[in-house]
Amino acid sequence: MKARLALAALALGVSVAAPAAARSPQESDAPVLIRWPDPASVRAEATRLPLFAQEMERAREDVDAAIRAGVHVPVPRDPGGGATHEQHKRNYKAIQDAGFLYRLTGEARYAEFARRMLLAYADLYPGLGPHPAAANQRPGRLFWQSLNDSVWLVHAAQGYDAIRQTLSEDDRRTIEGKVFRPMATFLSKGSPEVFDRIHNHATWANAAVGLSGYVLRDPDLVEKALLGLDKSGNSGILRQLDLLFSPDGYYAEGPYYQRYALLPFVLFAQAVEENDPQRRIFAHRDGVLLKAVHAAIQMTYQGHFFPINDAMPDKSLRTEELYAGVAIAYARTRDPGLLSIAQMQGRTILTAAGFAVARDLAAGRARPFPFRSILLRDGPEGERGALAVLRSGAGPDDQVVVAKNTAQGMGHGHFDKLNWLLYDNGNAIVTDYGAARFLNVEAKQGGRYLPENESWAKQTIAHNSLVVDETSHFGGEVERAEAHAPRQIHFEGEGDTRVSTAEMVGAYPDVRFRRSLVQLRVEGFSSPLVLDLLRVEGGAAHQYDLPLHFAGHIIETGFPLQSNPASRPVLGTANGYQHIWVDAIGAPTTADAFVTWINDGRFYTYRMLPAAGSQVILAESGANDPSFNLRREPMLIQRVRGSEDATFVSLLEPHGAYDPSAETTVGSRSRIGGLRHHRDAAADLVEIDLPGARTLVIAIADDPSPAAAHSVTFQGRPLAWRGHVGRFDIVRDATTDQDGMSMP
Amino acid sequence: MKARLALAALALGVSVAAPAAARSPQESDAPVLIRWPDPASVRAEATRLPLFAQEMERAREDVDAAIRAGVHVPVPRDPGGGATHEQHKRNYKAIQDAGFLYRLTGEARYAEFARRMLLAYADLYPGLGPHPAAANQRPGRLFWQSLNDSVWLVHAAQGYDAIRQTLSEDDRRTIEGKVFRPMATFLSKGSPEVFDRIHNHATWANAAVGLSGYVLRDPDLVEKALLGLDKSGNSGILRQLDLLFSPDGYYAEGPYYQRYALLPFVLFAQAVEENDPQRRIFAHRDGVLLKAVHAAIQMTYQGHFFPINDAMPDKSLRTEELYAGVAIAYARTRDPGLLSIAQMQGRTILTAAGFAVARDLAAGRARPFPFRSILLRDGPEGERGALAVLRSGAGPDDQVVVAKNTAQGMGHGHFDKLNWLLYDNGNAIVTDYGAARFLNVEAKQGGRYLPENESWAKQTIAHNSLVVDETSHFGGEVERAEAHAPRQIHFEGEGDTRVSTAEMVGAYPDVRFRRSLVQLRVEGFSSPLVLDLLRVEGGAAHQYDLPLHFAGHIIETGFPLQSNPASRPVLGTANGYQHIWVDAIGAPTTADAFVTWINDGRFYTYRMLPAAGSQVILAESGANDPSFNLRREPMLIQRVRGSEDATFVSLLEPHGAYDPSAETTVGSRSRIGGLRHHRDAAADLVEIDLPGARTLVIAIADDPSPAAAHSVTFQGRPLAWRGHVGRFDIVRDATTDQDGMSMP
Repeated sequence: MKARLALAALALGVSVAAPAAARSPQESDAPVLIRWPDPASVRAEATRLPLFAQEMERAREDVDAAIRAGVHVPVPRDPGGGATHEQHKRNYKAIQDAGFLYRLTGEARYAEFARRMLLAYADLYPGLGPHPAAANQRPGRLFWQSLNDSVWLVHAAQGYDAIRQTLSEDDRRTIEGKVFRPMATFLSKGSPEVFDRIHNHATWANAAVGLSGYVLRDPDLVEKALLGLDKSGNSGILRQLDLLFSPDGYYAEGPYYQRYALLPFVLFAQAVEENDPQRRIFAHRDGVLLKAVHAAIQMTYQGHFFPINDAMPDKSLRTEELYAGVAIAYARTRDPGLLSIAQMQGRTILTAAGFAVARDLAAGRARPFPFRSILLRDGPEGERGALAVLRSGAGPDDQVVVAKNTAQGMGHGHFDKLNWLLYDNGNAIVTDYGAARFLNVEAKQGGRYLPENESWAKQTIAHNSLVVDETSHFGGEVERAEAHAPRQIHFEGEGDTRVSTAEMVGAYPDVRFRRSLVQLRVEGFSSPLVLDLLRVEGGAAHQYDLPLHFAGHIIETGFPLQSNPASRPVLGTANGYQHIWVDAIGAPTTADAFVTWINDGRFYTYRMLPAAGSQVILAESGANDPSFNLRREPMLIQRVRGSEDATFVSLLEPHGAYDPSAETTVGSRSRIGGLRHHRDAAADLVEIDLPGARTLVIAIADDPSPAAAHSVTFQGRPLAWRGHVGRFDIVRDATTDQDGMSMP
Repeated sequence: MKARLALAALALGVSVAAPAAARSPQESDAPVLIRWPDPASVRAEATRLPLFAQEMERAREDVDAAIRAGVHVPVPRDPGGGATHEQHKRNYKAIQDAGFLYRLTGEARYAEFARRMLLAYADLYPGLGPHPAAANQRPGRLFWQSLNDSVWLVHAAQGYDAIRQTLSEDDRRTIEGKVFRPMATFLSKGSPEVFDRIHNHATWANAAVGLSGYVLRDPDLVEKALLGLDKSGNSGILRQLDLLFSPDGYYAEGPYYQRYALLPFVLFAQAVEENDPQRRIFAHRDGVLLKAVHAAIQMTYQGHFFPINDAMPDKSLRTEELYAGVAIAYARTRDPGLLSIAQMQGRTILTAAGFAVARDLAAGRARPFPFRSILLRDGPEGERGALAVLRSGAGPDDQVVVAKNTAQGMGHGHFDKLNWLLYDNGNAIVTDYGAARFLNVEAKQGGRYLPENESWAKQTIAHNSLVVDETSHFGGEVERAEAHAPRQIHFEGEGDTRVSTAEMVGAYPDVRFRRSLVQLRVEGFSSPLVLDLLRVEGGAAHQYDLPLHFAGHIIETGFPLQSNPASRPVLGTANGYQHIWVDAIGAPTTADAFVTWINDGRFYTYRMLPAAGSQVILAESGANDPSFNLRREPMLIQRVRGSEDATFVSLLEPHGAYDPSAETTVGSRSRIGGLRHHRDAAADLVEIDLPGARTLVIAIADDPSPAAAHSVTFQGRPLAWRGHVGRFDIVRDATTDQDGMSMP
């Protein structure tokens, strides 16, 4: 282990300090949390490493400005977004950056500034009680939520660690005795209901306390951070690594919070690796933490996280947490794909890990990140559904189908079992609203989650999943939702016919539904077609709504519409329906049930197979929203009434191009001649009429076993396949073609 | 003259052919329309000139593909966007590009392809009658509109000119006798009602006929193109240069059609300069054509044209017409600012002019284009209003206020006298809808202007200008509108207080209104404030509506709103009002009349000074739109009822920043403490309370004369200024501050 670390250090080109295992923190003044490049290397090389040089320059600008502004440590008063809140945020960044700059440059003024700032906190902190603006979350001292206090401590501990060597015994005693120790105590045994939870707030508290433990040379605090207050291992960071991540590195709350939670995990793990390498924390659970970094990146499109569950849709890999995550993962793995992510981020961290990223990037070692189709199982044992990602290629504009077959994901989870999303041509096409929230915008309830997050964003109708009788899955109750997870039945991420099939039982009493999403590469189509087959068995007569939230401007509808020109009604009264304006209602036939829209120069036709008597509702979000808290986005709803069972067959076809520069438009109309569905005894068959008198038949057996052989007689032809899904290319004869819409 | 041309040729590094003045086209086979770089220079240099090399590569790909696809010259059948329409478009580009590639490479296969294509047209053309899909426009033969036939001929003539030298006498006779001469005849004396108009369709026809004239060695056709069918000069290209452009290079129909019209002007002018330099066409009217190229560029933000009048808002400088415009203007002026435009376009043309652009760009000669505040007068004598552009700086993100004080601009003009637009931080903030049209999208009425272009996009309420009694300016009648133009009273484009003031009389009977837009640089504000003072005298009691169409999501309204939660009514029944959904209505006071929205991470607060009893309506476009032809965009309307006169005082304040990566928000609330207005005998005074107990007073005299001295007593203080606008920074005393909202 020693040898490996020393070699790693050599490879990093950093000053080879005594290997961590041999270090006795109690006896040394040297920094313990982070490995640093030595200042001589930085001086010699940094200017030739744009990524690192820019990062230093950015930190210098910030800290120099903070030094000019002077130490300003106000008495806490404001909620999120307010002046004192923002000042304390600036301060922890300044403390950290000043410490880091001192390590990189050796300039004493940086150490001095961090010292003065920390001494000011030593004056302030001991006198603080609960924050005056505390709301419904656990109150902090410096901030309205103790979560923010943890974040403060994670940053400040790293900054302090970097300058501790420069301080007098007196200063250390003051800072540690009045800031780090009491904060660590407050966040650990002073807040057991947070510290011992299995939740991202606890992760931050654990990391804050653990990092403080190393800095204070207090192994007891470190143990508590790792194993919980009672050191039993029933809580603490390691238990959280066990319970919050699936074996594939999927974080229970979804990608938005995965990003957020990753930072305390990786920062603390880095310190554990430095000081207690025998714990092999990066190897814990088969390397789950590194898997989690990779999984987070896989759950992005054009750098933006899939906005499932509570999520800000503008959140991308260009974020603090992932700068650290990528650099720390790279330092451990040397995975050249991570370098291209760092390049896209255009940022890194000011440590030896970031230095290595910058150096290897400058040396041309980056390789494209291997974006691919991937099944990320959910649940500690991988047994609670999955996020299925079908990616048509590794490029940034390639098509991605996301099947959200995950479990509920706690309080930030949305009620949208078997929901799906589509990205194509660089854009979100079938969308997820994300969270109803304006982060840190004071006028929007201080930047907190808005009431519409409950009344709209979390409701099933706000997603692309089945709604039974205008109520949300699990009646919108988190506890009931946590009790049931979908079952991922089949996943095939390669080839011309990529498939995810999942089943949900328990979202509604006595209702079971199964959905297959099939990404079909078809010759002559530049982007794959997406077939969506959703079959529900309800036991009794129900109303079934299948919404599709899409991004774009409607170009054409194939069927007549009854519009609401003079006054626009609301669709319902509760469960999100009160937020839906109805533009028009139609009753399409199987021959004319399509809607075409345009998004960023490409056309999308959504073709349906409506049952007799069913309706299609064209609508928009944003009703019953007197404070303008919601975005207004189009949707359509397929509605079937009074049926026990129903099958929704839909096909999404990207086509054509509009080029505003050249003023040319090609292929603005769908090329699919017809769509038909046939239910056999134990399989569904969908026919798709292609140009050139070809018909594609997709056969989906109920039985997912790969070995099972299936055969049906279909339109007088025997069709046989093995496994869950069969695909047949058939040349139509003229008779069929003339009757292209007939149900077989 | 000869010497100058030869020198220019040397400077261009092109083969110095016999100077044009000495050339006798009738006696030479050489190309006459365009000056070419010699193939040796191209071979030696092109690979080192990325702009030119890419352009050649692009042309090669297109033409090589066309050669592989074979000559396909279908019998005309389809309207715009249809298959035969698009094929004939591809063909004229292929003929042109093949000719150009032959000139640059000397490869015979390119000449041969153009020859075969032209011979196929010689087979087709003589048998054609009026196009079968002709609609309400003048029908062509190859296309549904004769306009497209002109465009075909402009391109094909240039391609033919480039290969003519390679053809046998027989082929020339066939192609000229069956294509160029009959087309030129059809478009000139066969279509006098188009050819002799003053209109962009005529420009295309004139250019097509004129270029054909040079190629056919027929001076008579050239004369007609320049001077009209009767050669009197009452029509033709020169007359169009006189009447369609203002002395400042503003084109009557506005920037969208300016871009479109420029291409035939510059291509034909280039040929005139080559063959008839004594006409000094580029010097015509003090160089109006070159001014027009510069004016077109000045009328952009982030490369996009201001979308006033009928315009596609996605239209940018990255368009065919401006690649040629920039290169041809550069070849004449060597203005290094044009090189940076070419760089932004990333495109040029395959001629000596484009070669010079590419070479000088590669040599690092580009300088930033001098974007600046500019007054572009409208009308042949500059007497019919103006487009006033206040630009806070030359950078792409700097703020731009556009005051649309132009005349009607013929059939594509909108009824929006004294309308305004705002760009800030790289985005359109106060917006213009542009045209209701989906260019070339078949399902949207073949890509033509939609009915909603008349019922919404052209109406006054769809703009940011005054609406009297829910009717549009001039009753929405073009003829009445053409009879009246606004009067630009004052323009000051430099300094801390930039101003445009204009007056409109005649938009409504007995109604006169005047508007000052003031762009105020204020210390401590990163972007200027914009003050909008609009005063109307109506002679009798009216309802006055002042709409503001803005881009962004509403964050906060200062005043209580009566919302329409359960059903959303329509505001009116005609003149565009039938397309407005009403979200909420409020009756703000002077103390709380503001609305804040966010756009791309920056906040915008629009503060009003409502008269007693007035209303603010929050609304959205898109009602009464059963075919989803309209975009849905937010607006607010200040409404005053039953007044003879009214003054609308509004202040737009950009502020703060939301950063989704860092999750920080600063300055999300307005910093303006109050806004007050005082009408003096012959001046308006507006007070703006700034942070730090400062008050800014803007005094706008009715009299615009620069020399006039004004003095008023204001809140016990004497205020004196000279000229139209005075500005005073006042330190408030405590008493005033406590009563900051009092009307003086």
